Parts: sequence; C-alpha cells; structure tokens
Amino acid sequence: MHILITGAAGMIGRKLVERLVKDGAIGGRPIERLTLLDVVAPAKPAGFKVEAVAADLAAPGEAAKAVAGRPELIFHLAGVVSGEAELDFDKGYRVNLDGTRALLEAIRSTGDGYRPRLVYTSSIAVFGAPFPAAIPDDFHLTPLTSYGTQKAIGEALLADYTRRQFCDGVGIRLPSIVVRPGKPNKAASGFFSGIIREPLAPRAAIGFLVHAATLPRAALGPRINLAMPGVSCTVAEQIAALRRIAGDRVAARIRRAHDPLVARIVEGWPQRIDARRARELGFKGESSFDEIVRIHIDEDRGGTFVA
Amino acid sequence: MHILITGAAGMIGRKLVERLVKDGAIGGRPIERLTLLDVVAPAKPAGFKVEAVAADLAAPGEAAKAVAGRPELIFHLAGVVSGEAELDFDKGYRVNLDGTRALLEAIRSTGDGYRPRLVYTSSIAVFGAPFPAAIPDDFHLTPLTSYGTQKAIGEALLADYTRRQFCDGVGIRLPSIVVRPGKPNKAASGFFSGIIREPLAPRAAIGFLVHAATLPRAALGPRINLAMPGVSCTVAEQIAALRRIAGDRVAARIRRAHDPLVARIVEGWPQRIDARRARELGFKGESSFDEIVRIHIDEDRGGTFVA
Repeated sequence: MHILITGAAGMIGRKLVERLVKDGAIGGRPIERLTLLDVVAPAKPAGFKVEAVAADLAAPGEAAKAVAGRPELIFHLAGVVSGEAELDFDKGYRVNLDGTRALLEAIRSTGDGYRPRLVYTSSIAVFGAPFPAAIPDDFHLTPLTSYGTQKAIGEALLADYTRRQFCDGVGIRLPSIVVRPGKPNKAASGFFSGIIREPLAPRAAIGFLVHAATLPRAALGPRINLAMPGVSCTVAEQIAALRRIAGDRVAARIRRAHDPLVARIVEGWPQRIDARRARELGFKGESSFDEIVRIHIDEDRGGTFVA
Repeated sequence: MHILITGAAGMIGRKLVERLVKDGAIGGRPIERLTLLDVVAPAKPAGFKVEAVAADLAAPGEAAKAVAGRPELIFHLAGVVSGEAELDFDKGYRVNLDGTRALLEAIRSTGDGYRPRLVYTSSIAVFGAPFPAAIPDDFHLTPLTSYGTQKAIGEALLADYTRRQFCDGVGIRLPSIVVRPGKPNKAASGFFSGIIREPLAPRAAIGFLVHAATLPRAALGPRINLAMPGVSCTVAEQIAALRRIAGDRVAARIRRAHDPLVARIVEGWPQRIDARRARELGFKGESSFDEIVRIHIDEDRGGTFVA
C-alpha cells in the first residue's frame, strides 16, 4: 500500500503519520510507501520507504507530480485554517479550493483505471447559524466563513468526482480539535484548543481518518460527506473538567481575553451535531471532555503533568 | 439603472429582456442601459441603450470587461445545462463554475465601493435523492449531477462573496421550466418541457428574477440561496391537464421514448419543494399545471392553438 498525505506537516498530519508508522498496516494491508507532502517538507519518520515533498498543490503541475506514484490511498489534509482564510481571502481560496481541485484533476487526468481512495478532511464549519437544537445529517450547508465555504465546495467536488468514478472519496467533517500541539495557529477554534496547551493526541480524529480510509464503498452510498461525532460542551465545562482532573492550580493558568474576529466566527458555529450516519458507519468519538483530558494525560504525558 | 444579463441569448435571458424592455423600469427605477452577454451575441431589442456582447466569461479578462461599465444589477443566467454538463465534464466546470467565479472575482476586483445586486439562477438540481416527502428550505445539498454540483458551488461562492460585501447576491433555485421555446437543448428536463412544444413564457421564472432583483437585502439575511416555488405534478398529470384544456388530438401527438441518460438524471431530482422562505419573501409560482397551460395559450398564442 502506497499512501499520500497532503498537509503532512500539520497537526493532524503528524499524528496520522505517527499512527500509520506504529500500525505498519491499514485495513489489513501492509504499508510499503508513504509520500508526505506539505508547503514545508514534513519530517521523515524512520521505518518503511518515505518521501517528504515540499509542494504547493495549487501551483501548476505540482498535484500531478504528487500523484505520479499512483498512491492507492490519499489523505488530503492540506489547508489554510479558518481564521487565516478569513483574513486572507485569496490565500484561502487558492489553497483550500484550488489546491483541492488541482488534486482531484490530477487524479482524474491520470486515467488508466487509477481511482484511489481519497479521504478529505472537511469541517463542521460547513454549517452556519441559525441551527436547530441538534444538527441532523441532512442539514443544509450555509457556511458563515470563507473557510467553511471552501470546505463545502471541496465536499461537493469530492462527491462529484467520486460519482463520476474519477476517485473513491470520503469526506469527514471534523469537529473542533480540542488540543493542538505546538505554536497556536490561526484556527478560530484555537481560543479553546489553546486552553489545554500541550500536545494532546487528537486521537478520535486520527481514528476517523483511518476508519474512513478502510470503509467499504458500498456502505457509503452517494452521500459521501459525513459529519463526525464530537463531544458537545461549553468552554466553561471544559475548564471544569480540567479542574476536576488536573486541579485548581492548572485551571487558574487560564486567562480570559476577548478576540472580536474569533468571537464572530465561532458565533456562527454549530454546537451539537447528530452525526448519526457516522456513528452507524462505525466512527467513534470520545464520550466526555473528562475522557479527552484523561487520554491526554495518560497517553501523551505519561500520566503526569506540572500542577 | 444599468443592467447586465449574462446568458442573455438563452431561453430565460430572452424572456427577461422582453420583460425589462416592456416594463422600462425595475423596482421603480428607470432602466437606462442594458448589456446583454452570451457566447453568441444576443439580439438587440429596440428601446433604450443596449450593448450586445459575445463573450465567454471563463476566458481571461472577459468577466472584467463585462463589469467594466459597473452595472448596478446583474442577472447571471449563463450556464451549460444539465445533460450537457453531464456529457462534457470539462465544459460544465469551465462554464458553470469557472465562469461564475470569474464574474464574482471581476466584481470584487473592481473594488472602489462597487457592489452590484447579483441575481444568480441556480436550480433544484442542487438537491439529490433520497428525499423526504417535501424538501424543506434547510435540506442539505447533495447533488447527483455535475450540473447540480456546479450550481451548488456557485451558490456557496455567491453567499461568501456577499457575506464579504464584494457583491449583493441572491440565488434562486428555479424549478424545471415547463415549456422551452425553440430547439430542444440538452437540459435533462427537456423530456417533459418538450411535451408542450411551442414557446411558452416561463412567466413565473421571470417574475422570480425581477422579484429577486428588487428584494431588500435586510429581508434575506445570510441565507441568500432560495428554493423557488413550483407546481409539483407528474408528467401524466401534465398530459391530463393538456388534454383537458387543448383536447385529445393535441395530447395524442405526444410520443413515449425512453432516454437512459435523462432517466438516470431525473430519477435523482426532487419532486416537491416547500419553498416556504421564498413564498414568505413574496416569490409567487403558478398554482396548477392547468394554469400554466392556460397562460401559455392566452398570452403566447393569442388564445388559440392548432387542435
């Protein structure tokens, strides 16, 4: 199995590579080759054959080069995050829309029966307020950000290219990733992912990606873009969970700071997603925020933290 | 008022021009200038100042030229129809997606406070089966054709460019146009629009366009793409209405011929649209198929037909 990962240097990309390297196989098939692509060359893990490529998919010819090795499985994670896409209109459309379209066109142009499984990371930002109490799977896409618009367009393209049998796509709408490793980026969700600051495995998200990679086509039908299950809770509830598990001193480090841009973006975000189809198709999310904090402490911090 | 109409040589375009010329004004403002654009130069009606332009919006620089005169109102009707977009994948994306995006980008690039009302003709093809008994306004967009995909993407772009205040958009999802003048085109709905063969004013559709052009921004909110009310009936009911009004000899001219491509496309189409928001916003459709046939006979055929 040859796997291409775009956006491999990003938060999800790095965690996904770690997981694939650890597993050594996916869907029962051994992984022989990994192509890792990002705008900066991703780090190369030791193990099987790995190429790390610095490329911009939207630049002419780059997408064709990326799929020239005919990877059988592609994780398309590359993208500009929500806050950045809102601040830089041209960059957001170029990376999130043109880059995705270039990848799909490169796959289609390969022809010759080439039809890889393409797992596309979309976002719940494809939905926009006002919302019903719970958002059903058949809720319309009325994004209120350029990022959400670009993700919705990516989903539509993925579905059409899949229907036309140019590729075999699955789109997964990730809920907000609660804890991001490293430097804060401009994702609008950073205001709450930043509350718990250290790297925490977005374990459920990686599980979604792997599950999407191996999901039988027949189980999906034509509606290939799926909202993923997340934990629905307020930031106050997140802080309470952190306090319960890590204590008052850790929780006391949180500072309140209003950011008007982030506030406006997040106001239009959905709060509770049914994700019924995804659950029925075997996608598993975390069950509570306490569990998310515990996983972080147990798995990523060896059971300890500085209190 | 300076109005630009793209796709002005098409069925809806010609009827819209007729209506605007007849009215001489829109929303209480006199029309001073009309720019009519299509891939072939549209016919120039007599009356006020009219330019007819042959241009392909997706070609470099053409969209910028089209908006250089800063029209205050744009009807963007240009597009490749459903059957053609299905048969010619590249052409469909080039005209329906790239052409629309080029127009939006040309408007945005004008800058300098230029923010025209842009009425975009979308289609109920943005919806895809399976459907609930009636399709609510907040039903998701899961098109089952490339045409529907391109229209859904156009809607998403229109909404984002409007939200960013680059233009002032309204998207209207037209139900199938029942009777098309002139030569049959490759619209998949042609199989039933062709049943009543002579030109019939798509009066409701033109009414929708004019209403969308003058609808106050504040009434719309951020969800600017609206499903339009249509008459929901089967082809058998259409034929029965024709028989009631025009008699057995006229109805006997209909021949049954199966077209697998059309059958597959139409199978995925919605059958009953709530269009509640559009009705509340004052969009008025016809109330029965009998009314549609009567309007055709009274208005377009001077009250007579060859029985």
